[in-house]
Amino acid sequence: MADEKKLVEEITSMDVDFTQWYTDVVRKAELMEYSSVKGFMILKPNGYAIWENIQRQLDDRFKDNDVENVYMPMLIPESLLQKEKDHVEGFAPEVAWVTHGGLEPLQERLCIRPTSETLFCELYKNIVHSHRDLPKIYNQWCSVVRWEKTTRPFLRSSEFLWQEGHTAHATAEEAQEETIRMLNVYADFCEQVLAIPMIKGQKTDKEKFAGAEETYTIEALMHDGKALQSGTSHNFGDGFAKAFGIQYADKENKLQYVHQTSWGVSTRLIGAIIMVHGDDSGLVLPPKIAPVQVTVIPIQQKKEGIEAACEEMKQKLKEAGLRAGVDMRDKSPGWKFSEAEMRGIPVRVEIGPRDLAEGKCVLVRRDTREKKVVAIADAASEVKDLLETIHADMLRKATEFLNSHISDAKNYAEFKDAVENKPGFIRAMWCGDEACELKIKEDTTATSRCMPFEQEQISDTCVCCGKPAKKLVYWGKAY
Amino acid sequence: MADEKKLVEEITSMDVDFTQWYTDVVRKAELMEYSSVKGFMILKPNGYAIWENIQRQLDDRFKDNDVENVYMPMLIPESLLQKEKDHVEGFAPEVAWVTHGGLEPLQERLCIRPTSETLFCELYKNIVHSHRDLPKIYNQWCSVVRWEKTTRPFLRSSEFLWQEGHTAHATAEEAQEETIRMLNVYADFCEQVLAIPMIKGQKTDKEKFAGAEETYTIEALMHDGKALQSGTSHNFGDGFAKAFGIQYADKENKLQYVHQTSWGVSTRLIGAIIMVHGDDSGLVLPPKIAPVQVTVIPIQQKKEGIEAACEEMKQKLKEAGLRAGVDMRDKSPGWKFSEAEMRGIPVRVEIGPRDLAEGKCVLVRRDTREKKVVAIADAASEVKDLLETIHADMLRKATEFLNSHISDAKNYAEFKDAVENKPGFIRAMWCGDEACELKIKEDTTATSRCMPFEQEQISDTCVCCGKPAKKLVYWGKAY
Repeated sequence: MADEKKLVEEITSMDVDFTQWYTDVVRKAELMEYSSVKGFMILKPNGYAIWENIQRQLDDRFKDNDVENVYMPMLIPESLLQKEKDHVEGFAPEVAWVTHGGLEPLQERLCIRPTSETLFCELYKNIVHSHRDLPKIYNQWCSVVRWEKTTRPFLRSSEFLWQEGHTAHATAEEAQEETIRMLNVYADFCEQVLAIPMIKGQKTDKEKFAGAEETYTIEALMHDGKALQSGTSHNFGDGFAKAFGIQYADKENKLQYVHQTSWGVSTRLIGAIIMVHGDDSGLVLPPKIAPVQVTVIPIQQKKEGIEAACEEMKQKLKEAGLRAGVDMRDKSPGWKFSEAEMRGIPVRVEIGPRDLAEGKCVLVRRDTREKKVVAIADAASEVKDLLETIHADMLRKATEFLNSHISDAKNYAEFKDAVENKPGFIRAMWCGDEACELKIKEDTTATSRCMPFEQEQISDTCVCCGKPAKKLVYWGKAY
Repeated sequence: MADEKKLVEEITSMDVDFTQWYTDVVRKAELMEYSSVKGFMILKPNGYAIWENIQRQLDDRFKDNDVENVYMPMLIPESLLQKEKDHVEGFAPEVAWVTHGGLEPLQERLCIRPTSETLFCELYKNIVHSHRDLPKIYNQWCSVVRWEKTTRPFLRSSEFLWQEGHTAHATAEEAQEETIRMLNVYADFCEQVLAIPMIKGQKTDKEKFAGAEETYTIEALMHDGKALQSGTSHNFGDGFAKAFGIQYADKENKLQYVHQTSWGVSTRLIGAIIMVHGDDSGLVLPPKIAPVQVTVIPIQQKKEGIEAACEEMKQKLKEAGLRAGVDMRDKSPGWKFSEAEMRGIPVRVEIGPRDLAEGKCVLVRRDTREKKVVAIADAASEVKDLLETIHADMLRKATEFLNSHISDAKNYAEFKDAVENKPGFIRAMWCGDEACELKIKEDTTATSRCMPFEQEQISDTCVCCGKPAKKLVYWGKAY
């Protein structure tokens, strides 16, 4: 029994040091490994499998929204990156430059894509000619590189996996609809699949994407009260179309510029899952994306019939469509429980000699540790129901946490007090002036997270300068 | 009716100019587009969807073989690439070098992965300590960059999508078993999913992968009689393990080097599909990977009930689990037939007023153009069966083509005659000397494709030098 709690004991408590807790979980659950290139990480099987499940289920939702997948080149010529002024200013300082191909220097430098707006613009310029060619709703799953100075697993790294959707539309209205539609796809996915509630809203001009007319965001709240920008959707208007000359002939055969959008989520979502649902025993994975949804653990494994019963149980669970495993290793049940908890497996099934004699087994939930004794014959359908319940309970718990960590500030004293003493989002009115955003950040480190879609007038004056208020803003410290 | 055959008429006949036929099909079927960086191509929705289907079905087979997916960094430090001598010699001349990150020059150049053996070795060195950590059977789906001078869509490009499996084992025997197991996974997949028969065998030393002890290959035969290397599996022995210091403690607690393998297939498989199955009307897609397996085309679309019947048919086909579409565009049926043929859709369903009145519809096979009239009520199950039949017939046809394009050469005169006059593989004996391979290539442009697993002694002397023969070799002109 000596090693029984070893795994869990190695995790720092999140109340003691949240940052260390995060690092411990990421490493002990074997989600990633550092590589020898600073800022570049290795996604190990446990981590990559979460991404695969996110990818498959989000991609199904994309396809329901008429998205077509493509693959664009990894490299962008410097001259192409420079075509849209704001965009290049935003990205040039953080791209990796390829200067040699094989043994020879290149005539023009190429950057590894930090994002692919410019490549999609070039493509659309070539393939969009008529209103009949519109809309184009393309997406790609790939990795991108942005040279970061300080990095943290899943939250900020110099290379990360993501999807980037890029669309072209005939009208400004259609582009705006698409921008909001895809933001809602993200928010629904996060709630219904990841059990993470999101605050939806619009970014201020200061926080907009380089080259966008408007940026919309989904913001989640982590256990430590910090916000995590979890996905964004941008409306470019016709800015890129004018820079790249993307025009189509409308029904009257007049040339018009297209209107464009882009939208993306990344492996950052894995960081959100860890910090929204995890606890001091490790990961708590939402059932729908857990690589293993249920694991069968034998008790007194060497007793007659136990291994066979466990193997049979795994088979039954698999036949019921569940991602099921069985842990037959030569370790104590306690050690296996700890490891299963560390990895965040939503349900474990324990089968011991007494259970088996009675035709029963024990289901244990990861999120609440509640136990339930059920008939072995009913186990598969019981586990299925339990996974649904766990998802609903995890979402409810996360929503309650979010709602209980939003405070209102009507003046700057209240605001500063909230930043100091009330972890979470702060709702406060804003005059619309970037100077106030800068001052708030300078004074408190909090930044504007978004202007929520559901606006309220909680006070008449800007929380910072006291001038007339224009917008309700969610503020917070952020990753 | 003027535009009815337009699409097809734009394709060069393959008998007139095979190379042009290939390019025409690739472009007109909208599989890809060139980008502004030479040698880098864009996979458009029709092309990428084929790759997605390949990926999903091959990945399922990987998982049945205990493969775990991971993601490794895109960049490799120059010093890491150089650790294995043969490997760096093979790849250094064709990699892209990153020299600047953001605004600053890097202390050490990084190359974009041309393949990831060195990264996996570094990982295994860090995570393999005991025999209990073995085997490691990791794979990643990603893109790689190799700076190519001459490129052709899907066959050779400076960036391509692929999967690369990298494994570490306790013994040489296990590594050899893994090498062959994965080659067989590829060959079975190509037959059972892509309807492409493969010649399986071992590469000569000259054609081996840089750093491998042995390379095994699957070779397919294209319509023009040229061979296409379609997948490879390498046994590295303990060469990389020694270069990187990857050791584990065995059961007696003695340090041993691991034995490693790697194996990969790429978007090149799409080139094989085009050139094995295509015809003068365009693509002919194997049903199991066709993005659209069946398309419904209305005849006299504006007549009462036709559009509704077509839409209903599509729904029924979808409910039967088929990837089904319907073509309601304002074009003539003939134009739609041409386009569906160009795109290689395996089956089309035609519904016109007379059919509808009789409760019938017409199924047309892409591969043979055979028509079959069936009851609308039975259409879904008829199409399902037909797709199975089409797969079997395509595989049989391709196998017959392969078998009828293999000739034996017992002496150099016969060999040269075969290269000139008999497109396809040439079976001939070889002494084992690289000089003969070089001379044969110099004289005829044919190269050794593989030493087949099923060896025969078709003559006692080397086809080139006349010395005693050691191996039966398949030779051919190759892509």
